[in-house]
Amino acid sequence: MTEPTPLLVPRGFRFSSAGAGIKASGNPDLALILAAPETSAAALFTRNRVVAAPVEVGRASLASTRGRVRAVLVNSGNANCATGSRGIKACRATCAEAAKLLRLSTNQVFPSSTGIIGVPLPEGQIISRLPSLIASCGSTTDYMRGFAEAILTTDSRPKLFSASVSSGAASITGIAKGAGMIHPQLATMLVYLLTDVAASSSELRKALGHACDDTFHTISIDGDTSTNDTVLLLASGASGIKLRSLDDEFQTALDEVCRSLAQQIVADGEGVQHVIRLSVKSARNRTEALQVARTVAHSLLVKTAWAGADPNWGRILAAIGRSGVALDPRRISILIGDQTVCRGAVACDFDARRAHQELSKPESRVEVRLRRGKSAVEFLTTDLTTEYVRINADYST
Amino acid sequence: MTEPTPLLVPRGFRFSSAGAGIKASGNPDLALILAAPETSAAALFTRNRVVAAPVEVGRASLASTRGRVRAVLVNSGNANCATGSRGIKACRATCAEAAKLLRLSTNQVFPSSTGIIGVPLPEGQIISRLPSLIASCGSTTDYMRGFAEAILTTDSRPKLFSASVSSGAASITGIAKGAGMIHPQLATMLVYLLTDVAASSSELRKALGHACDDTFHTISIDGDTSTNDTVLLLASGASGIKLRSLDDEFQTALDEVCRSLAQQIVADGEGVQHVIRLSVKSARNRTEALQVARTVAHSLLVKTAWAGADPNWGRILAAIGRSGVALDPRRISILIGDQTVCRGAVACDFDARRAHQELSKPESRVEVRLRRGKSAVEFLTTDLTTEYVRINADYST
Repeated sequence: MTEPTPLLVPRGFRFSSAGAGIKASGNPDLALILAAPETSAAALFTRNRVVAAPVEVGRASLASTRGRVRAVLVNSGNANCATGSRGIKACRATCAEAAKLLRLSTNQVFPSSTGIIGVPLPEGQIISRLPSLIASCGSTTDYMRGFAEAILTTDSRPKLFSASVSSGAASITGIAKGAGMIHPQLATMLVYLLTDVAASSSELRKALGHACDDTFHTISIDGDTSTNDTVLLLASGASGIKLRSLDDEFQTALDEVCRSLAQQIVADGEGVQHVIRLSVKSARNRTEALQVARTVAHSLLVKTAWAGADPNWGRILAAIGRSGVALDPRRISILIGDQTVCRGAVACDFDARRAHQELSKPESRVEVRLRRGKSAVEFLTTDLTTEYVRINADYST
Repeated sequence: MTEPTPLLVPRGFRFSSAGAGIKASGNPDLALILAAPETSAAALFTRNRVVAAPVEVGRASLASTRGRVRAVLVNSGNANCATGSRGIKACRATCAEAAKLLRLSTNQVFPSSTGIIGVPLPEGQIISRLPSLIASCGSTTDYMRGFAEAILTTDSRPKLFSASVSSGAASITGIAKGAGMIHPQLATMLVYLLTDVAASSSELRKALGHACDDTFHTISIDGDTSTNDTVLLLASGASGIKLRSLDDEFQTALDEVCRSLAQQIVADGEGVQHVIRLSVKSARNRTEALQVARTVAHSLLVKTAWAGADPNWGRILAAIGRSGVALDPRRISILIGDQTVCRGAVACDFDARRAHQELSKPESRVEVRLRRGKSAVEFLTTDLTTEYVRINADYST
């Protein structure tokens, strides 16, 4: 992430966006990706037991086509969640209508929704906009940006990132929204990763799992998991370059795209003033490193201290202690920036003003050393501000 | 909890309080309970792996005396946590000095500390105040209130509750502080339960475990667990009434005292505007009922919605879904007050204004039904307000 790569449109994809009147603001809320015939796909979904209709339908479609996707139909402004069997029917109806117009089978149209929970999806409004949505597809960066804009909810800006592979002969572009978890109800992380490399669905699944582990799985704004979270990877094959000919290069590029999108999502979190790059080092294994990182990242006392750029390591230490890991407090060290502020669970003599300055930066570094083993994880999280509470406590009915 | 029971001082206890200059405010910060020779004790401590010096010392003393306590020495304003071996020495030194003055052994003096983390305990200030502290003991309610005042940190009021047993022949009084988890670093729940019933240490341990399960173990303000949490039950035997002659009456009274103190602690939480009585019903067992209750009670989206008295059941449903319990969303119902707002994970037709009114009350009821079994738990929790963030984000160095 030295200089920003210019946006690239991988071959084999076209984009479109429109307003279907789902958002009260009148902003675009319907978006489409059309993919070339040979496109293969892999996806990861929310681990929440409560899942929205499009997650159920999309998961079933991917299984029945064995990872074939020809179109992605996204609406924002309505999550189609907690809508029961009626929500499933509405989701299928929009996919079926798009499939009919595109001469595809219904299960080749992959659906996503994000927005308010518990309100019936206005399927009629979506279906009536489909002909013009399909008619206005294009493959320039402007069309792609239009797609990225139309999937937003309370995000303040679209999130895109590109990487080129094989000396520019192929590319990967990621488009994301979320995840502030949002007024009026609950937002969602939606991520679409597009490449013109040729790959099987199983190759994509493997690459996607790896890329998500150190990116979307290690970020947290407020600890809430949406009912709609979806990460979809599509490979059109239009570059003619086979994934397996690229060795690690594809994985490295995909990781880079995901890392940038994850960072953009966290930085755009609701009310966020400070992003914290939290490293947990010398853990016995990745699981316990993650457990410590999540407990610290979700502690209200830690997050509010970060809002005040307060180098209050006692709160971090207390959160580590209740993480459930059977650790020995006397081996714990905590660093803020490059200063050790606590060693062996005892205060160090440190420059509090310099630690305050580190935490005042838009992105600062906090490191926890457990001295139990060789595992480490880097977690991206945020402070908790009065603005976050204000946004989410606003009762508007 | 119909009409408030007047405060009772169980026989066999005397109280004292003083200012030792630990708190910058100059408020009383040193407190003492003296207990009759036959007093037996049981205690529960924080489950945090990072524990303060007094927790380590107090636990060891109780083990070595097999549950005999003659004095309780508490300071507020300094947690004596993250102070290493020096902190242990300081704690032992204050207990040893009190023991010398009282002609006891050091391990009969039970220590507690609450306040800032990572700052050495000013043991000299404490030790020099001990003679006058001991000299000014008394057994009236005023002395007891003085004790309750001196153990506070950012609490806005002292917390006491009494219950009589055996038609007034004996009594139980509880005194508590906390648990706002507090500026400048971290506060603590300290609870002292005193009775003049005669009981063995093992009888007390059993009664205490039972009483805590449905009271102090089922409350949450911000989900952080202090390094100093302590609940101590002392039985002086001075009434001459044996616990085992009382059947369930002692347990019922102890439960009532703990329930009131837990409620007082939650209602006095930092920035709290609304207390929520969250019931999780028809769970398969207590563990999963607690898991669902804790996930809902700790969700930032749920807590901020409660701050706005927003009947946003979608956030509650999403939190239940990510609780880790292998539940079927289609069986979940959610009630706000007496209205069902969601049934089978689908929106119900309900009066949103009436639900908003319920959530606007100082204490309101939210109920989750899982339809998996017969277990239930009642959890007491709070909203999350901008005031909470303001208090905890205030950087003062």
